[in-house]
Parts: sequence; C-alpha cells; structure tokens
Amino acid sequence: MASLLRLPSLLSPSKPLLRRRLPAASSAVGAAAPATAAETRGGDREGQVTPRSVDFNAWYTDVIAAAELADYGPVRGTMVIRPYGYAIWEAIQDYLNVKFKETGHSNMYFPQFIPYSFIEKEASHVEGFSPELALVTIGGGKELEEKLVVRPTSETIVNHMFTKWIQSYRDLPLMINQWANVTRWEMRTKPFIRTLEFLWQEGHTAHATLEEAEKEAMQMIDVYTKFAYEHAAIPVIPGRKSRVETFAGANRTYTIEAMMGDKKALQAGTSHNLGQNFSRAFGTQFMDENGQTEHVWQTSWAISTRFVGGIIMTHGDDAGLMLPPRIAPIQVIIVPIWKKGDEKAAVLEAVDSVQKILKEAGIRVKVDDSELRTPGWKFNHYEMKGVPVRIEIGPRDVTNKSVVVSRRDVPGKQGKEFGVSMEPSILVNHIKGRLEDIQASLLQKAITFRDSNIVDVSSYGELKEAIAEGKWARGPWSASDADELKVKEETSATIRCYPFEQPEGIKKCFMTGNPAEEVAIFAKSY
Amino acid sequence: MASLLRLPSLLSPSKPLLRRRLPAASSAVGAAAPATAAETRGGDREGQVTPRSVDFNAWYTDVIAAAELADYGPVRGTMVIRPYGYAIWEAIQDYLNVKFKETGHSNMYFPQFIPYSFIEKEASHVEGFSPELALVTIGGGKELEEKLVVRPTSETIVNHMFTKWIQSYRDLPLMINQWANVTRWEMRTKPFIRTLEFLWQEGHTAHATLEEAEKEAMQMIDVYTKFAYEHAAIPVIPGRKSRVETFAGANRTYTIEAMMGDKKALQAGTSHNLGQNFSRAFGTQFMDENGQTEHVWQTSWAISTRFVGGIIMTHGDDAGLMLPPRIAPIQVIIVPIWKKGDEKAAVLEAVDSVQKILKEAGIRVKVDDSELRTPGWKFNHYEMKGVPVRIEIGPRDVTNKSVVVSRRDVPGKQGKEFGVSMEPSILVNHIKGRLEDIQASLLQKAITFRDSNIVDVSSYGELKEAIAEGKWARGPWSASDADELKVKEETSATIRCYPFEQPEGIKKCFMTGNPAEEVAIFAKSY
Repeated sequence: MASLLRLPSLLSPSKPLLRRRLPAASSAVGAAAPATAAETRGGDREGQVTPRSVDFNAWYTDVIAAAELADYGPVRGTMVIRPYGYAIWEAIQDYLNVKFKETGHSNMYFPQFIPYSFIEKEASHVEGFSPELALVTIGGGKELEEKLVVRPTSETIVNHMFTKWIQSYRDLPLMINQWANVTRWEMRTKPFIRTLEFLWQEGHTAHATLEEAEKEAMQMIDVYTKFAYEHAAIPVIPGRKSRVETFAGANRTYTIEAMMGDKKALQAGTSHNLGQNFSRAFGTQFMDENGQTEHVWQTSWAISTRFVGGIIMTHGDDAGLMLPPRIAPIQVIIVPIWKKGDEKAAVLEAVDSVQKILKEAGIRVKVDDSELRTPGWKFNHYEMKGVPVRIEIGPRDVTNKSVVVSRRDVPGKQGKEFGVSMEPSILVNHIKGRLEDIQASLLQKAITFRDSNIVDVSSYGELKEAIAEGKWARGPWSASDADELKVKEETSATIRCYPFEQPEGIKKCFMTGNPAEEVAIFAKSY
Repeated sequence: MASLLRLPSLLSPSKPLLRRRLPAASSAVGAAAPATAAETRGGDREGQVTPRSVDFNAWYTDVIAAAELADYGPVRGTMVIRPYGYAIWEAIQDYLNVKFKETGHSNMYFPQFIPYSFIEKEASHVEGFSPELALVTIGGGKELEEKLVVRPTSETIVNHMFTKWIQSYRDLPLMINQWANVTRWEMRTKPFIRTLEFLWQEGHTAHATLEEAEKEAMQMIDVYTKFAYEHAAIPVIPGRKSRVETFAGANRTYTIEAMMGDKKALQAGTSHNLGQNFSRAFGTQFMDENGQTEHVWQTSWAISTRFVGGIIMTHGDDAGLMLPPRIAPIQVIIVPIWKKGDEKAAVLEAVDSVQKILKEAGIRVKVDDSELRTPGWKFNHYEMKGVPVRIEIGPRDVTNKSVVVSRRDVPGKQGKEFGVSMEPSILVNHIKGRLEDIQASLLQKAITFRDSNIVDVSSYGELKEAIAEGKWARGPWSASDADELKVKEETSATIRCYPFEQPEGIKKCFMTGNPAEEVAIFAKSY
C-alpha cells in the first residue's frame, strides 16, 4: 500500500535512529558519570532531529519519531499513537472530561456507522463532508443495500436519536459528549494534525431557545480557551469564523486559533451554534410550555488529537519536545549517576527516597535506573521527550544530601541548580516552584512570540507583505466572501477568526474602504 | 434500513413507556407524600417491564429501555449507549485501567482500518473472522485498490507494528492496551451482548519466552476474575477453553464464564496465549542475549461492553436493574418528600446537608428534587435504574433529625430502616455499611444461584438431562473434538471451560469411559 506519509530515510521506522546509536549493553553497565558536560553529551546530540530553523516540517516529524509519540500505520494517512503520545492525549482527556461533567454534560456512545442517506439530509453538511467519506459497502460477506458512512462527525446520527428522545421542554436541555474515533479521507496528511482517522471528543446539545444554544456554544469555546492557556500554555486567540470558514451545517463557528513555531495558524478547537439546521433536517421537535411544537436549537463542539500536534509545534525546540508541566505525562525524571560499583547502592537508595517524596507530593515522577544506557543518553532522551525537570543524583550529592535540578526550558548551565536539599519539604517546594515557573514561562514565551508576529494592517498591500513574511495580519474587514476567497488565492492566507477581543474606535475595511465592524485575523494555516 | 433488533411495540423507542405514564407537570408540583406504601406506588408498577419469569429476553430488553441504558442505532445490530449505560462502562474502565497500569501496561491507539491482506496472514485467524468483516471499499469518492477491514480485533495490525518496534531482548516485554471500538458483522444481535459494533479494551503483549507469555495470560484472566467477583459481584468460573472454542489464532484461551439469571452462560472476558502464531505470520523477531534471532511469544486479552449485559442479567429483577454498589454510577439517591409548601424549605435544606455529608465521604450520591415527578414515580425510577440505596427525607424526618434508608436488593418493608440519624459520622457509617452489605449480598446470592444450578454428571444421559433443565453440567471429559461437536448438535450446549478449580481423584470421561484429566463445564450460552 503506497503511503503519502514518508519519514525521511534517516528516520525509517524499521531502523529507529535512537536505537541504532545505542551502546552495547556491556559497555553501558555500571554507567559512568562523565567529568564534563561535553563528555556527557558525547556525539549523541548530532543528527538526532533536523534543526527547527532548517526545516520545520522535517523537525516536526523527526521529533514525533524520536520522542516515540506516534508512528505511521500501514494504511496511507493513518497513525499509530504510541504510549507517550497517548499519555499526552490522556492528560487532555482527564482535564476536559472533568470540565464537561462540571458543565452538565454526560458521556455516551453513538455507533460509527451512519446510513448514507443521513448525510444527505442537511444540504451544506453533505457538501462539506461527502468528498472525505470512507464507505463500508460489504458486511458479513455481502454487498450492503445501503452504503454506510464511517463517522466523519456525528451530527446526523445524533439528531436521528435526539428526535426519538426529545418530546417536551422537560427533556431539554439535552447535553452529551462522546470520546470517539472519526474518519475523514484526507489527501494531505500529517501526523496528529490531519490524519485519515483521529480521536476526538464531540459534544452535542439541544436547547429550547436560540439564546441558550448560543450561550452553550460560547461556554464551550471558553472551556477550550482556558484549557489551552492554563494547561497547554498555548495562547490561542478565540473568535468567530467567517461565513466561508464556518462548519458545514452551522450558523456560527467559534474557534481557538494557535500560532505554531513556524508562525502558521492551527485551528485547535471549535464550537458551533447549529441553529435549527439539523433539527429541521431530522424533525427534532419539542412541545414548549404553551403546548406549541418547535424545533430544538443545537450546538456541537470538538477537540481532537490534533491538539497534541499543536503542543509539539508551539513549544518544541532543536532538542525535541518541550511539555508544559500540567500536561506532561512525566514531570520529573530522576537519573542516578555513579562511577564505581560501591557507589551504586547509596545512590539508588537516595534516588528511591527522592522519588517517594515527590510521588507523595502528587508529582508525576519517573526514575530511569537502567544500566543499559549512559546518563548522557538518558539526558538527551528525556529532553527529546520534553520532560520539564530532570534531577541528577550522584555520589557527591548523596554525601551532601542534595540533588542537581535541571530545567528543560532553559538550556545549559543557566537551567541547572546544584545543591538543592533533599529535605522533603524543601525539595517538594523547590520542584513544585520550578514546575510552576516552567508552566508560566512557556506561556509567556509563546505570548511574546505570538504578539511579535501579528501585524496590524490597513491596506491589502500591508496584508500581502505581512503574509509574505509568514506573519499573521490583523485588520478591519467587511468585504465580500468573494474578496475573502481572492485573498486566499493570492496569498494562501484565510480568515482565521474575528477575534472576540476587538480594538476600540472606528474601523475601515482595509480591502474596500467601507466601514467595518470588526477586525479579522488572516494567516496561512495547517 | 430494516432492523433485526426490534423492541416490543409496548416499548417502541419513539413512545417511551415511562414518559407516557408521567403525571402532568401541574399535578406533580408540591409533590405530596402519600400516607401508605400502596398509595406511593399507585398503579405505576404495572406493565413497566415484562416479568423475568415470563420472558427473560423480553425482560432484558425492557430493562435496557426503561433504565435508559441503551437504544437501537439506525443501522441493524448497532446500539447507542446512553449516559446511564455508559456510566457503568466508565466504572468498569476506571477499575481496569488502573489495574492494567499497575501490571505494567501502557495505553496506546492503533488505526481501525487494516489492509485486507493482513487478515489473511494467520490461517486460523482469517478462517475465524472473515465471515464477520465489514469492509471499506470506497474512500474520498474513489474505489480503493485494497479493501480495508474495519478492525474486528487488532492482532494483525499490532504485529505489523511490533515487527517495526522490536529488535532486541531489551525491547521486551512490550505490554500495551487500547480502549477502542470494534466491528463484527453479527447476524443474531442483542444489546450489549452481541452488537455489530462494540467497545472494549484489548491488551497485546510480546515476550521473550513462552513461560512469560503464559504467566501474562494467566495474570490477566486473574485481573478479570477479581474484577468480576469483587466489583461486579459476578461469581465467574475461570478456566481454559476447549480446542474447539479457542480464539482464532491462539494456542490457549482462558475465559471467565458467568451464569446469567436464565442460567445461560456468558463468556465475560478472555485472555489468550497466542504462542508464536502471529509473530511467525508477521515476522516479529528479536535478538536474544546470545545473539540468536527468535520469534516473540504473545498474548492478547479483552473485556467489552458485553460485560454490562452480564451485570444486568446477573442481578436484575422484575423491578429492573440492580447494580453492585462498587460499580453503580449512583450509589445513593435522595428523594425529598413534602406535603405543604411551607415544609419544602426545611426538607430541601436537610436533603442538601445529607448530600454534602455523603459526598464528602466519597459516596456517589444524587438528589432528585424535581417537582415534575411524584416521590412514587421517583421510587420506581431509581429502582428500575438499580440504585443500591434510597434515602427519603420528609418533614417528620427533619424534626427527628433522621432519614429513611431503603435497600434496592431487599424489597418492601424488610429493606427499609426508619429513624437513621442524620449525625454525619453515624449516617456515613450506616450508609457505607449498607453499601458493603449489598455488595456482599449480591455476590452471595449469585454464588448460591450458580452452585444450585451446576450438576455433576457422570454419563451423557445425565448431561442431557441437566442441559434440558437449563442447568450447567460438569463432568470428566477427554473425548474428541467430534464428540464435543456432537454434544453441541444434540443439546445446544458447548464446553464453557475446563475450570481451574478441579476436583481431586481419578476421573473417567462421561462420554467415552476413558481416563480423563479434567472435568469440563457444559452449558448453553449467549
């Protein structure tokens, strides 16, 4: 089966790069502590991943391979999410799942096979999705009478069921969510960002009024925004999509737009006010308090495994992944270091005690005491994996009852603190403090990067210039859909959103000179 | 689209039974406390579900509809898992997910689309699964060059990836799990028990030796057994499948077999020692410590949403579902009762305080203070939903600073305790004690039922008699596969397992009179 997704030959999955550079087991046993930093890193560093500045896309796929986040599936465009990548997704799930329940939603599960006729019921929906469908035509050895669509999104089947369950205003609001896989036959694929099958959550709600639906759609984009800022340290810009970019079947789409390390925009989550489009198509009605029959007002909203790609491309550097502590599967990696066999017992005892102290304090900590790898190899490995904090413990540290603490986000000696006390309360406070510092610092760095790469424009010429520099352009806009498509054709940039946060004052559309109510943000995007 | 799955017309999903019997909103406001139990129940009880003794299958589907556990999807044989049913599945997931991680497994995700050629690689696997496959033949509007199988189980794609990831003994053991949907084109379907698409977890491991793989397969069937006994209160019988009943592609299949309320057996979980069958088919090899290349030894193991069906059919009664407290989404339902408007505030205040006390003690508690339903309706509703404990609080209870506690598993007055103190420590101890009593009592009842319905047989005639009575037959067995198939043909019973727990002493095969090493259990099954 031909694959559009090809790793550079350097990273061919059958010959993983890191594995090839492994020292033989025998030479690594009794892992020696090198005298200098240079010795520690040895030649391990070189060629590990393509530098970000040289080729951002190659860097991205290299990091995914080297940090063991994902691999390519046998079918073109599919992806295997490996344990470390999946653990990041689980961290996203853990946070959102609680928030969804707090805001009154219940989890449930809808079948993934949808009768083809359902997709055709909502006119703009079928137009948006039909080119991307995977169809089951054979089941149990027989040609099926009606083709089945493998769920690309569930609005149609949800409405089919809602129509059964909703009779009266007393059945509203109906607020549910499902964690599921979805399939979209994408031609240009990229791990996490756009794959033939991906994982997501999709919320679906039905309400008695437009106002309630609108409030719900806004509430959920707000949940996503908070998650992005506070947990993923991604300073997304929340806003409303243009008509052209609105979800197929929605009246309004709200979005969170994130700036990646190459300055391209990533749509990281969306929330749709569906109005009565699906309830009219599927006859989802209720009897109101006055005995009148009305169609329900609906929303849907989703975040997917694409978000993992957003985390990689926001924070990563040439040494690999860099994870915000709040979503890092491992927050602290402890590496024991000893030269002579008789030092081992004391070092490992101290390591064990430090691990226990941190674990009890609720910190996600891992010890790598494998004797098959050198400390230098481990340093690189966990930097590649983006672990926020590293603790080294050697014989001298044991004597001094202290440890060495290194920050993933501050390279070299500046990020290193020697002589941090092993005394439980001091150590815990220190590490918790560092994790908070890193969380805040990653967000601040991303905000600075974002803000220095958004240009306010007041003419189409200025927009073209900003986009040509790879930046985002923000300017007043009230031109036509046709003008929007012209901008796309000429610059490859699209309206990412009309941001919720709008400048004060009178605005004039930079394209037409007509009055404009809002500024829009234009950018190239994934 | 025609559906093989049809609810009795009484329970047509478009006219839910419970909803039809609702009192009008106005008559329910200011919900009155009836003077007697008879008044409380009114006529609500009648016709709610088909009695278990009259028609077990109708009872089962009635309970699923009335307790809002699931509904039928639009495609024949598919099921929508509704929030309450899904919450039971989440309770199963929460427990097992922790156990899997404790035993060294990591979660990950494999694509659900498998090239058709993969399925053909392992001879017995293709034979077992090919009649049940759903095939995607069209993607993105084009006929595909190779048909794609929608995952019926993942051994083939797992081995394809393991072959990439495993090179050396240092990469072993590789122990992973995934939570996923799977598709099997079943002709006879039944909600939860056998559906076209279902949810499950599938563990997959690779080891350096047969012994390690065998130990892992046994460890996981042990995890399932403990879960069944200690959480689901289902006294499963763990054992080994006969050759005839072994998983397509496995050397050995271990199983947990549960006796349902109609005495039919349910295979509630399986763990397979796959030997080197898949590693040979996919070339999954490793270099051992001596530099020799060998094929890995593997296991796979799974529990699915079928287990929810097992819980319903083990514990349920004519009043509906009965949930073991440890997996009940709601452990305690509080129903406020008042007659006059001026009683309401004090009752609701007490209800609120009791809820808070129980919640803080870690008990899963819900208050139903809706004024649209009468207390009697609520009593029936939460009995139908199998909530283990009900607390009623009325004006007299507020005065006495006490509550009324009812057990779901003990009907009528015997299950009711009056005057249980609201004092936090007394109340919490009381409720926790009752939840433990109910958990233990459900298990004991199921054990008694199971043991009184297993007959030890020493001749084929005795087996036929036991099976004709709907019971399980246990007897020494060393006859041929052909004999086993003859038993199936003549009695509809199959070997459920050779139980791990074997009687002492010399055994003689009840079919052939030859020496037998083990007893086998025969039963009709789902």
